[in-house]
Amino acid sequence: MFWDQVSFQLRPQPRGVHLITREVLAHIPQLNQINVGLLHLFIQHTSASLAINENADPTVRSDVRRHLDILVPENAPHYQHTYEGPDDMPAHIKSILTGTELTIPIKNGALALGTWQGIYLCEHRNAAGGRRVIATLQGNLKS
Amino acid sequence: MFWDQVSFQLRPQPRGVHLITREVLAHIPQLNQINVGLLHLFIQHTSASLAINENADPTVRSDVRRHLDILVPENAPHYQHTYEGPDDMPAHIKSILTGTELTIPIKNGALALGTWQGIYLCEHRNAAGGRRVIATLQGNLKS
Amino acid sequence: MFWDQVSFQLRPQPRGVHLITREVLAHIPQLNQINVGLLHLFIQHTSASLAINENADPTVRSDVRRHLDILVPENAPHYQHTYEGPDDMPAHIKSILTGTELTIPIKNGALALGTWQGIYLCEHRNAAGGRRVIATLQGNLKS
Repeated sequence: MFWDQVSFQLRPQPRGVHLITREVLAHIPQLNQINVGLLHLFIQHTSASLAINENADPTVRSDVRRHLDILVPENAPHYQHTYEGPDDMPAHIKSILTGTELTIPIKNGALALGTWQGIYLCEHRNAAGGRRVIATLQGNLKS
Repeated sequence: MFWDQVSFQLRPQPRGVHLITREVLAHIPQLNQINVGLLHLFIQHTSASLAINENADPTVRSDVRRHLDILVPENAPHYQHTYEGPDDMPAHIKSILTGTELTIPIKNGALALGTWQGIYLCEHRNAAGGRRVIATLQGNLKS
Repeated sequence: MFWDQVSFQLRPQPRGVHLITREVLAHIPQLNQINVGLLHLFIQHTSASLAINENADPTVRSDVRRHLDILVPENAPHYQHTYEGPDDMPAHIKSILTGTELTIPIKNGALALGTWQGIYLCEHRNAAGGRRVIATLQGNLKS
């Protein structure tokens, strides 16, 4: 039974939805020792989030971003938490709707993602720094 | 410490929200060997998703479907990713909002769901095939 | 390898979004024995949910509540499931959008939350009782 946990910082990204599968994998080379297991990813922030979706066409990601901006607009009259800027309160709500953490199955030393799946960083702030992620890996080692 | 992972295909479903608790359980009979543990379910697609909600009245599921169709309509003017049909880009966004994966506690050989809880397949495409799910089980075996 | 599972009832809360980090921690003192691991929280209900977000300013939580009430209004004309009261069907949809369960990394005997992160109970009913949560802890014990 293998357990490991690493903390790393993603590259800073502009507001929007970004494919980060390769960047995440570069931080967890120990993944390829695991036969059957799970990878847990947790973003330690309240205005950026993680999701899984289409890894091929970048217009999917820009459409997701535009749709989130419509579902959770800036400057809505019911916001009271406004002193951190117009992008802040929408960022909190978008993070709750899309999610702070992900668990992904590991099979034979690799993530068992579907053909069209990738890991998304949803960056909801206009000018954030690199976001910190905790990756926890567990499973049975390859024999 | 017990680990197992199985991949199976759900029966094809029309667009809508479907209760699949029994169908999932039929694929993982090894569940009843686990005393305390976790079941992880991961759908390997970007236009269908998994959720947990009310297992009794089917109008809950049709209301969820109608509400998702309102929150994420077809043919919104801001979509650029349109070449896979009008149901495709909304399917990606709905999948992100509802989620690709679930973890459910296992207790004494069964899922520790609440009385009114069941597992939902949220099928967002009009004419999809059977969706592939990876189930990962872990825990302590019953003595 | 450590496994434990406890079931507890949260204090009843009015409709809204509530910070419950301390209340959850009070139910799982065994957390501080774990060096590296994961905490899984599962709410056994279909009209309340769990999320992670900002732990400092309570107006974030009231803004989240107001925004959910706008995204999923009461008495929408497309609801058929209305016989449990006007707050019921919106509660099911809000629960699906925000999520029934959370996994949080454990590091050196504590939750590895970011500085500004806390655990939210999203109570979507007007007059619910205390909600039942199953906490499952796993990891390596401190040496």
